[in-house]
Amino acid sequence: MSWIDLNADLGEGFGAWRLGDDDALLDVVTSANVACGFHAGDPSTMHRVCRTAVAKGVVIGAQVGYRDLAGFGRRRIDYDHDELRDDILYQIGALEAFCRVAGDRVRYVKPHGALYNTAAVDPEQASAVVDAVLAYDPALPVLCQPGSELASQALNRGLTVVGEGFADRGYLPDGRLVPRSRPDALVHEPGQVVQRAVRMAADGSVTAVDGSAVPCPVRSICLHGDTPGAVELGRAVRDGLRAAGLEVRPFTGDR
Amino acid sequence: MSWIDLNADLGEGFGAWRLGDDDALLDVVTSANVACGFHAGDPSTMHRVCRTAVAKGVVIGAQVGYRDLAGFGRRRIDYDHDELRDDILYQIGALEAFCRVAGDRVRYVKPHGALYNTAAVDPEQASAVVDAVLAYDPALPVLCQPGSELASQALNRGLTVVGEGFADRGYLPDGRLVPRSRPDALVHEPGQVVQRAVRMAADGSVTAVDGSAVPCPVRSICLHGDTPGAVELGRAVRDGLRAAGLEVRPFTGDR
Amino acid sequence: MSWIDLNADLGEGFGAWRLGDDDALLDVVTSANVACGFHAGDPSTMHRVCRTAVAKGVVIGAQVGYRDLAGFGRRRIDYDHDELRDDILYQIGALEAFCRVAGDRVRYVKPHGALYNTAAVDPEQASAVVDAVLAYDPALPVLCQPGSELASQALNRGLTVVGEGFADRGYLPDGRLVPRSRPDALVHEPGQVVQRAVRMAADGSVTAVDGSAVPCPVRSICLHGDTPGAVELGRAVRDGLRAAGLEVRPFTGDR
Amino acid sequence: MSWIDLNADLGEGFGAWRLGDDDALLDVVTSANVACGFHAGDPSTMHRVCRTAVAKGVVIGAQVGYRDLAGFGRRRIDYDHDELRDDILYQIGALEAFCRVAGDRVRYVKPHGALYNTAAVDPEQASAVVDAVLAYDPALPVLCQPGSELASQALNRGLTVVGEGFADRGYLPDGRLVPRSRPDALVHEPGQVVQRAVRMAADGSVTAVDGSAVPCPVRSICLHGDTPGAVELGRAVRDGLRAAGLEVRPFTGDR
Repeated sequence: MSWIDLNADLGEGFGAWRLGDDDALLDVVTSANVACGFHAGDPSTMHRVCRTAVAKGVVIGAQVGYRDLAGFGRRRIDYDHDELRDDILYQIGALEAFCRVAGDRVRYVKPHGALYNTAAVDPEQASAVVDAVLAYDPALPVLCQPGSELASQALNRGLTVVGEGFADRGYLPDGRLVPRSRPDALVHEPGQVVQRAVRMAADGSVTAVDGSAVPCPVRSICLHGDTPGAVELGRAVRDGLRAAGLEVRPFTGDR
Repeated sequence: MSWIDLNADLGEGFGAWRLGDDDALLDVVTSANVACGFHAGDPSTMHRVCRTAVAKGVVIGAQVGYRDLAGFGRRRIDYDHDELRDDILYQIGALEAFCRVAGDRVRYVKPHGALYNTAAVDPEQASAVVDAVLAYDPALPVLCQPGSELASQALNRGLTVVGEGFADRGYLPDGRLVPRSRPDALVHEPGQVVQRAVRMAADGSVTAVDGSAVPCPVRSICLHGDTPGAVELGRAVRDGLRAAGLEVRPFTGDR
Repeated sequence: MSWIDLNADLGEGFGAWRLGDDDALLDVVTSANVACGFHAGDPSTMHRVCRTAVAKGVVIGAQVGYRDLAGFGRRRIDYDHDELRDDILYQIGALEAFCRVAGDRVRYVKPHGALYNTAAVDPEQASAVVDAVLAYDPALPVLCQPGSELASQALNRGLTVVGEGFADRGYLPDGRLVPRSRPDALVHEPGQVVQRAVRMAADGSVTAVDGSAVPCPVRSICLHGDTPGAVELGRAVRDGLRAAGLEVRPFTGDR
Repeated sequence: MSWIDLNADLGEGFGAWRLGDDDALLDVVTSANVACGFHAGDPSTMHRVCRTAVAKGVVIGAQVGYRDLAGFGRRRIDYDHDELRDDILYQIGALEAFCRVAGDRVRYVKPHGALYNTAAVDPEQASAVVDAVLAYDPALPVLCQPGSELASQALNRGLTVVGEGFADRGYLPDGRLVPRSRPDALVHEPGQVVQRAVRMAADGSVTAVDGSAVPCPVRSICLHGDTPGAVELGRAVRDGLRAAGLEVRPFTGDR
């Protein structure tokens, strides 16, 4: 593999509230997961981020989440299957309007927060995500964790799945992420984060917390946008990938 | 004129709450103004109404409103121009997803409630509606009151405007509606409502409260969907129009 | 036991949307579980219901729910403990304002929907409810299902617990309700519902689906307010209880 | 006058979003206008701010606003009188719960944003605020601009009115604030802000943009909390007031 995509969550403010530095991150990433208004993201923020993304050649994906502004989409909700599918369709459509106005279109779908985590293990919620994407556009890739329930269902039903890795998260020997409650959940040292990103991109593997090498077949690396130093770390990862001879480009192909 | 369209507001429930009889009204109208989630209309209701509308050959329009579930979009809000434009774009896009899934597309835009009334007189809000439609799709007609600020701006900027009349509302001699606070705001007698609908459709005029004939150049008649007897009245209007030799069909042309 | 309370969920409309016949039910029940705005219930509805309840001598309790208007509080949400406690405190306080204006106060707390069901089995959510009530007013009774996790925690921590029964629901031999997915979840025949209410009130027991007698130590019977014929069934239950020599009165004592 | 109160808007985050530095400001102000959840302020933020305020001896007031999270309460909404009164009652009650838990109570009411500005000139919205406070507790002071419609109605109906001044805002010769659209709307130089605060507190007057001295009979000075350098400016104002021999204390009296 000679290339890798960099994605980050963007447009996660709401009204008067801001979160992360959208403009700076749009200089770093190649794919922007734009919040669609249910867990974050008001229409004007969506509009602005889509315009800037298109101007900078960044690909736009729908970062769909639970209807939960107060919880930022981080609380699991036991949705009925059809209601979840419809909430996802609604969000994709809403973002599509701003992509269209900006001269592009929604190019992939990535679930957010608790929906991401739940769809990774829960067959019903995974199927609601897959049903929404299939109904909307079966050619739309799903960006998610390799080996997850969502990845598996999406593949089985003919969708394109793009695996993503987390260079700043610890991995268990079975390929899952170390739970955030554990002290080794996060990799803090920037040099190490860069090194892990390069290894994921170049070798498709990552060193687990027990020192073993774990397969990590990813075409995109997720940068966290809302932590202090996020932009600097993102730049370091991108520069490190390039220095290692890897092309940093959207997984959806050139625009 | 040998034909007329019948429109009504549909999909105005939210979650557990219902308003009006969507299924019955979809047997009466030729154009469905589907609520888009900001003043009413949850995604699953939108999905269901769009599927039924398409199955019954009813044309779907985006009934866009203020972000005001608690006020049902009936309270004027002093939006900033860009925020209103973006809220409208968001709603059109969201509805588009369900039209697409149902095998059709959004075919027109009609503002709801206080946005309808405000855009009829306020240049800034009218321009926000026009800007949203122009940005989204300049071929999309706007359904509104003839002679309103919105109609005028939309026409001036090259949009298609479809005038609508209210057969069950009293008209002032200058063509505006009698304010709802007045006792003659509503026409209650079904026979009279039918007669006024026929006259609007056939002659393009309406009898004002002072007995004068007022021009009413409309291609669509709005049926109120959430009043008791709404479905029966709608059927009576449709049958009366047909009995008078008028074709009842969508203003957007055959689907 | 020579008396029993009748409670129902009230004030469950929101803005333009109505649910159930609040005024008619306030002539039947002795305790009103008033929705507090998170799953249903706008401030003006709360105000009106509180005034009417006080005028009719009906005791007011806070029907607290998840922050989920779109799901009517019927979807389980994995709240953080403190956030759930604070959402409950907020709702009790909001209702208190309208009780105060109406000349009374919040007299008990009853969780709604998915919070009711979750707190009945989940120690963390049960503890959030108990912590909220303890912090607000340790003298406030909690209305819930006898034998539930919530009942048990509330008792252990010194709160007053009032058990409630469902005369129109099937019971399992272990005292739990028959899941709604089963055909015998509901008792439809009004005569039978009345009979079961009388037995609950008089004997503190109910006939389970296998015919066995199950202890059902309740001081209140819950009437469902949003089903067709709810008001008539409620009246029948109340009249049946009185005909059986039982006093129907609030569990909180005379006002 | 030998004393003055300092107030600021606090608790204006929502869920994951933060705005301003609540903890630092609570070391500066003597009165905290705590957001109540309609334009900003989730229950857990309200809980935390109330606890900290009480711990630091800061008096808590209800900063009530329009139901408009997306617009941060800054867009005028044409509320019906009763609905606005009820939305205000709801918010006061909700905040009261957290004051109660923190060992204090709501000690005053201050409208926020567009409600502040609208109630300053619009008789109907002013009367909704006054009706809410009268219904809730006629002893509760209203914090607002001297000479405003709200101040006048509140006084006429027997409420206590506390006037507030804005040391960092330009004043017109008639005592109103310079509109924000004008370049002289804001006073940027910290030394000047401090000086104006001292003059307001000591002399009850302020220098208008035309150089004239305008009466400014205030018992509280409002500090803006969400601007860069807000905390430093607040400290400078407080220190300047003390250096000028003025006591900085709550207008509600010692707690």
